[in-house]
Amino acid sequence: MKAPLLLAAALLAAPAPAADPAAASVSPGEIVAAAPAADWKAIPATDLLVMTLAPSADGKARRAVIQLIPAPYSAVWTENIRTLAKAHWWDGLAIVRAQDNYVVQWGDPDGEDGAKAKPLPSLSPTGETGYVRQLEAVAMLVDPCGDRQGVEPTWLCDAYAPGATFRSGWPVATDGGREWPIHCYGSVGVGRGLSPDAGTGAELYAVIGHAPRHLDRNIAVVGRVIEGIEHLSTLPRGTEALGFYATPAERTGIVSIRLASDLPAAEQPRFEYLSTDSDSFARYASARANRKDDFFIAPAGGADVCNIPVPVRRIAAAG
Amino acid sequence: MKAPLLLAAALLAAPAPAADPAAASVSPGEIVAAAPAADWKAIPATDLLVMTLAPSADGKARRAVIQLIPAPYSAVWTENIRTLAKAHWWDGLAIVRAQDNYVVQWGDPDGEDGAKAKPLPSLSPTGETGYVRQLEAVAMLVDPCGDRQGVEPTWLCDAYAPGATFRSGWPVATDGGREWPIHCYGSVGVGRGLSPDAGTGAELYAVIGHAPRHLDRNIAVVGRVIEGIEHLSTLPRGTEALGFYATPAERTGIVSIRLASDLPAAEQPRFEYLSTDSDSFARYASARANRKDDFFIAPAGGADVCNIPVPVRRIAAAG
Repeated sequence: MKAPLLLAAALLAAPAPAADPAAASVSPGEIVAAAPAADWKAIPATDLLVMTLAPSADGKARRAVIQLIPAPYSAVWTENIRTLAKAHWWDGLAIVRAQDNYVVQWGDPDGEDGAKAKPLPSLSPTGETGYVRQLEAVAMLVDPCGDRQGVEPTWLCDAYAPGATFRSGWPVATDGGREWPIHCYGSVGVGRGLSPDAGTGAELYAVIGHAPRHLDRNIAVVGRVIEGIEHLSTLPRGTEALGFYATPAERTGIVSIRLASDLPAAEQPRFEYLSTDSDSFARYASARANRKDDFFIAPAGGADVCNIPVPVRRIAAAG
Repeated sequence: MKAPLLLAAALLAAPAPAADPAAASVSPGEIVAAAPAADWKAIPATDLLVMTLAPSADGKARRAVIQLIPAPYSAVWTENIRTLAKAHWWDGLAIVRAQDNYVVQWGDPDGEDGAKAKPLPSLSPTGETGYVRQLEAVAMLVDPCGDRQGVEPTWLCDAYAPGATFRSGWPVATDGGREWPIHCYGSVGVGRGLSPDAGTGAELYAVIGHAPRHLDRNIAVVGRVIEGIEHLSTLPRGTEALGFYATPAERTGIVSIRLASDLPAAEQPRFEYLSTDSDSFARYASARANRKDDFFIAPAGGADVCNIPVPVRRIAAAG
């Protein structure tokens, strides 16, 4: 009598049958399942990082896939990250921090000790200019917060910027003249010290809690975890300040981080995202903001940009 | 040279030295640390649930504390929850579901099987009326989304309701005539089937991901985890649809759930929250929305209501 609980609250990961997208009660997942093939865009193998962690205590493999954000966003850092992956720089390093409702962070545990730090390959200097992009033309998908009523296909009121929208499959914020990438659940960003240090890309973190949007424009967002985030989000939390682990034994080792394009073709994972310019995405976003499937009584009439995750799916490998 | 990474991004859990709250670079944590004793309010023992899970694989105790939301919000459900705790109803039941970036849910694994379901104590009937509260007077702490510029002490633009504010230590949304509790990270809500089923309070979930605000007004929010959420957020994710566990062996057992007021006085945990009516809270919220501590380059000028967690602290036990 109480089942199925939270029925309609399924994330996209749950199987969703294809359905008539015009039906009033259609769910976001059903809209995505019904999207035509032309609305899906391939993610280049040069934009995919495959991260292999040490096996779990019960011997299970742990692998996560990170999609790097395309240029022009954070391009200096993503190029450094490709250089680091090609140099196998992260191999043998570790997850050094897990802070609940915040981030999991990895890199060189000895990075702060000049004598013991692992030497870095030659990297490009980074700086503030990469955080934001000057807009040539302003074409926001949705209006900012001014008038809440009746804006379709959805209404994104953003507490952190005058507006929010999607570009090439990524959520971005904008002030009309500039735009910048957003920290959502699963976003990957660049650890850094105090400004003017902007980080190199060698120290990275993934968000495992509520979107820490106050980091937007303060830290470079370089990607997002598109598969296997549970291997990061379930790691034991560190007990030191900021969730750093108290002892080396608590850290989880990194076996390797590779660009998918550097793997043998048959081993390259392949993914697609739902084009954020497509009609399917517009209807999906509208349905996320106005849930009318059977479970819901009171559709919100809005959604925050991080609660409209861009659908990503794995497709068969090339091999 | 790269240390300390993400320095100013500490959550309140990290130690924060007392500081001059008037300083331009003061952090939210420093404002909370400097709040006078009179700004802290005790949480009644009758509002605290102590949840003890089976020990972890390496033998460590796992305990979480949930604060129940005070009346008038969701009062029918919270009274049922007190009845269920007094009846020791959850003892021997289990965590049945863990869905990444969404919820961990607990209750009777056989609850859907009439022949095997654990009998419930006598509970009050629940219904939609408990989801929202009619307001007698509208006194929003902050303006809704209309004018983004210059609103102090902070500015909360909410994508899910015309306005958001805080009442008696809890984030709530409002349309000016009604207000209702909000789903944030750590919020506890009531599992239910399709409407008109509104759930009894026997099946509960805790949010372990980005705030699922689309559930607001659709599911009764009854509390929040104020200690030990890492014992829920790190549980292995279930592999069935919606994160349900595929086999009984994967579930984590519940040893007991008790009202703190039913424990011996010396064992009762005691907590306080920072009064959301206090000047300290207003300054803390403003600092969350306008981070000016050393780490930050670009203060956002706003914050969403779930990124202003109400400070809660444990104090010495009575015994």
